[in-house]
Amino acid sequence: MRKRIALDMDEVVANVLPKFLDAYELTFGQRLQRADYWGKKVYDIPGAEHLREVLRDKGFFRDLPLMENSQEVVQELHEHYDIFFTTAAMEFRNSLEDKYDWLRDHFPFISWKNFVFCGDKSILRADYMIDDHPRNLVAFQGKGLLFTASHNTDENRFTRVNDWLEVRDFFRQERGL
Amino acid sequence: MRKRIALDMDEVVANVLPKFLDAYELTFGQRLQRADYWGKKVYDIPGAEHLREVLRDKGFFRDLPLMENSQEVVQELHEHYDIFFTTAAMEFRNSLEDKYDWLRDHFPFISWKNFVFCGDKSILRADYMIDDHPRNLVAFQGKGLLFTASHNTDENRFTRVNDWLEVRDFFRQERGL
Repeated sequence: MRKRIALDMDEVVANVLPKFLDAYELTFGQRLQRADYWGKKVYDIPGAEHLREVLRDKGFFRDLPLMENSQEVVQELHEHYDIFFTTAAMEFRNSLEDKYDWLRDHFPFISWKNFVFCGDKSILRADYMIDDHPRNLVAFQGKGLLFTASHNTDENRFTRVNDWLEVRDFFRQERGL
Repeated sequence: MRKRIALDMDEVVANVLPKFLDAYELTFGQRLQRADYWGKKVYDIPGAEHLREVLRDKGFFRDLPLMENSQEVVQELHEHYDIFFTTAAMEFRNSLEDKYDWLRDHFPFISWKNFVFCGDKSILRADYMIDDHPRNLVAFQGKGLLFTASHNTDENRFTRVNDWLEVRDFFRQERGL
């Protein structure tokens, strides 16, 4: 029986950060540098809290860029594991169709049967979970991998993967390669 | 720790059958009687296969009637268990917003954190599952309850509940009442 990987979307396969940097620049007239947001979310910067509201906009999740190397590595993993895209979409009703269409466009080799839009991820059962939120990994009963994002840099309870090539290498090691 | 119930939507809390009977009548000019469809799906009737396509229509899932007593019993269960609505929505992209809005309207006391739209339900982890599809209960590791629907009348591998009052009674017994 193939093992299963529960794979988060935002900040794992879909890069949310550039649109927040754009929104910040549009509002405040300056482009944030890495040192300005590293260690937190862009909307945790004092005065920028309202930027989080863009997550409610229809279309926000439709044109997010792919994380580098994510397509190729998910394709490789798909040959050896059952991949489920598991995303906490339910806070944002307007994200549902956008996320669905985005997945169909960028990962056409993963069946819609393996899409899971949820809220509380503790409902999931899988062997591995790749996620940028420690709270999701805490509630998970399998092996959790923390995908590095600006807001989780201080976290040290989980195996960390900094990019998709590290994800690839982790699972190659799991398969004894 | 409260136990969890994974609760299906279609043919469990949302009554899909009347709209299929309407669609059949509109196409074939006659109202089906229970004996015509009992033991199968309406769209399993020879000549009526194309009726299944109405499931793709925007709006189809938005105005489904509630199953009798479902609201009151889910409210009672909600006091003792964590209720997750777990629905195989992913085959029908156009159903996502409709199902979301329908749940918010009819079950406002259940948080969006507890909505799960998926395809293959074997990804779910819970203590109980109430579902009309045997395939979902086969893949489930907790206690499965089969909610009676026209297409599952021959199934005998699971504890059967014929209506929401039987669901209520099952869980009252589980709690020793």
